Amino acid sequence: MKLICSQQTLSNAISTVQKAVSSKTTLPILKGLLLECVQDKLYLIGNDLELGIQSCIDADVFDEGSVVIDSRLFGDIIRKLPNAPVEIYTDNEFNIYIKCEFSEFKIKGLSPEDYPRLPDVDEEMFYQIPEDLFKNMIKQTVFAISQDETKPILMGELLEIEGDNISLIAIDGYRLATKTGQINNNVGNIKVIIPGKALNEINRILAGDEGREIKISFTEKHALFLIDNTKIITRLLEGEFINYKQILPKEYNLRVKVSTKKLLSCIERASLLAKEGKNNLVKFSIRDDIMLVTSNSEIGNVQEEISISLEGEDLDIAFNSRYLMEGLKVIDSEEIYLEFTTNVSPCIIKPEDGEKYIYLLLPVRISSSR
Amino acid sequence: MKLICSQQTLSNAISTVQKAVSSKTTLPILKGLLLECVQDKLYLIGNDLELGIQSCIDADVFDEGSVVIDSRLFGDIIRKLPNAPVEIYTDNEFNIYIKCEFSEFKIKGLSPEDYPRLPDVDEEMFYQIPEDLFKNMIKQTVFAISQDETKPILMGELLEIEGDNISLIAIDGYRLATKTGQINNNVGNIKVIIPGKALNEINRILAGDEGREIKISFTEKHALFLIDNTKIITRLLEGEFINYKQILPKEYNLRVKVSTKKLLSCIERASLLAKEGKNNLVKFSIRDDIMLVTSNSEIGNVQEEISISLEGEDLDIAFNSRYLMEGLKVIDSEEIYLEFTTNVSPCIIKPEDGEKYIYLLLPVRISSSR
Repeated sequence: MKLICSQQTLSNAISTVQKAVSSKTTLPILKGLLLECVQDKLYLIGNDLELGIQSCIDADVFDEGSVVIDSRLFGDIIRKLPNAPVEIYTDNEFNIYIKCEFSEFKIKGLSPEDYPRLPDVDEEMFYQIPEDLFKNMIKQTVFAISQDETKPILMGELLEIEGDNISLIAIDGYRLATKTGQINNNVGNIKVIIPGKALNEINRILAGDEGREIKISFTEKHALFLIDNTKIITRLLEGEFINYKQILPKEYNLRVKVSTKKLLSCIERASLLAKEGKNNLVKFSIRDDIMLVTSNSEIGNVQEEISISLEGEDLDIAFNSRYLMEGLKVIDSEEIYLEFTTNVSPCIIKPEDGEKYIYLLLPVRISSSR
Repeated sequence: MKLICSQQTLSNAISTVQKAVSSKTTLPILKGLLLECVQDKLYLIGNDLELGIQSCIDADVFDEGSVVIDSRLFGDIIRKLPNAPVEIYTDNEFNIYIKCEFSEFKIKGLSPEDYPRLPDVDEEMFYQIPEDLFKNMIKQTVFAISQDETKPILMGELLEIEGDNISLIAIDGYRLATKTGQINNNVGNIKVIIPGKALNEINRILAGDEGREIKISFTEKHALFLIDNTKIITRLLEGEFINYKQILPKEYNLRVKVSTKKLLSCIERASLLAKEGKNNLVKFSIRDDIMLVTSNSEIGNVQEEISISLEGEDLDIAFNSRYLMEGLKVIDSEEIYLEFTTNVSPCIIKPEDGEKYIYLLLPVRISSSR
């Protein structure tokens, strides 16, 4: 293998594929990146057997071939090189020589034979999704994925394509976040569960540019996301996802309209005492055109007053402040609706601007006296 | 106590004095800030018994008085309030009420009686030092302070004022950093040891503005630094500092002139393999107008070539790469001199631009074969 490429382009590609390299693996070869020179391209591949990422950059290739190199060390070296052409070549013992201006590295590599291949995914049948839409869908839902390893299915999100609707749904047992967007679907309906790790990495790789599209294809066990010159292949989670439509309340008894930012600020302040009390509890007291947000702990208490428009009766209800804040932070709409049934049934938070986003949150039971 | 002040000003003052509050203390009162209202000022004081910081801000004072409030919680609350006037008052049981727009907090405070007073330091006799000079003196030396608690005297820096020269000196047993500047000294000579923690906090508080001056006064056991409306009082370290002038070599056998940035880049890259080998060792091979910087470990090796001007003979010498990098990073001069005697005696690094800075570094002994 022998090639010359740009330091900057190579450095960026390494940063992208490194996300699929596990530092904790017991298999030394999985700590490496596979470099593969074919025609006038250098392919870089990271793979932790759940998630694989491949990037492809232009290179002057003098000898085709491939090798595996320690991912962290390779990334550190290339990042520290000057912005100049980088020459990389190997000998028969998988030693890798890296030269750039007045620097010369010789690094021990590994045989590419032992590196696990990425699964084959047919790229002919694909869905096309605007990049900014998909990035936003991930941002608005991914934080509600469960971290509980005893419920592996909830450590991913349901991706559902029904007609021209595409939705992501995350549930962790205390809350549910779902966002729906529109695409041109020429392929058919589908329902798969994408691991949270893959979604987080896709979110990081996506620039969120308007006008650009990503392509998604599926096999029975894998999903392929094609973003520009980068391929992300993830294993799908197996099993039945919770029937989330059953969970979403059809009606409400009262509805509050309130400023998203103001409510978030109130809760952020109230949560300072909620944290001290270690229960993270904030209480809403809804009365006509005023909502009081309160919290108390041994060291003191706080009361915040916020103007609202209310349809329906008064209500006292309590929530985990962290869950509230996480939901409010991802809503861009200036105002939101809070929909309640009783103080022991789920609350729904929706943007006022009609955007198809739903955040459902279970309240915390409190005694009726404050 | 009752006052109204600006949220922004109060928030900044809290950030400054919080640096002197230890989160690890076993004395609950030391986790607090002392608030003191006198005339039209609010004084805020943090004190961990080694280091005390006092800030003073303008306030509309309706009742003079004082109270102690949990430092972290107070800071978090004030930072999260809107940019609007903040009203603070206390009752007879040291409860503290904080009101701002539609937010109301009630926090349990403590009696100011039990809060340790800052030591008295006579502010009449003081040295005046340009702020940018003193900030730079700290930046260029403080990283060479020892972290070794068995050598407490080396966990501080010697501050020496001799005539119109002011110097800071840090030594950790492997290296020495010293920077000298000019002041107008109308007070007399002095030699004290300032704890590293105080210097780090002063560095953070100093904006480094040109034209502004700080004032420094001393008692037998304390130093007072007056920066604008902020007072920093630190205990001095007791004992004899190393006679550093004896350590500085008077002569050299060879001298290398080299670009500061280029040498730093070479060493940063070489250190990537030095780290892998866990000894942090980089070697210099000095030959006429070329210096080779090399390092090797099990996983590979690196060679960097850099142009130099040399006075004297060839030399092979090795250093801890981290120590080299820390010294080179704080030198602003475009070029530096490296002065060597033998490959087992200290090397001196000096800026080429005549600035009075010396970084002395012990080499690591290596066998003569590479």
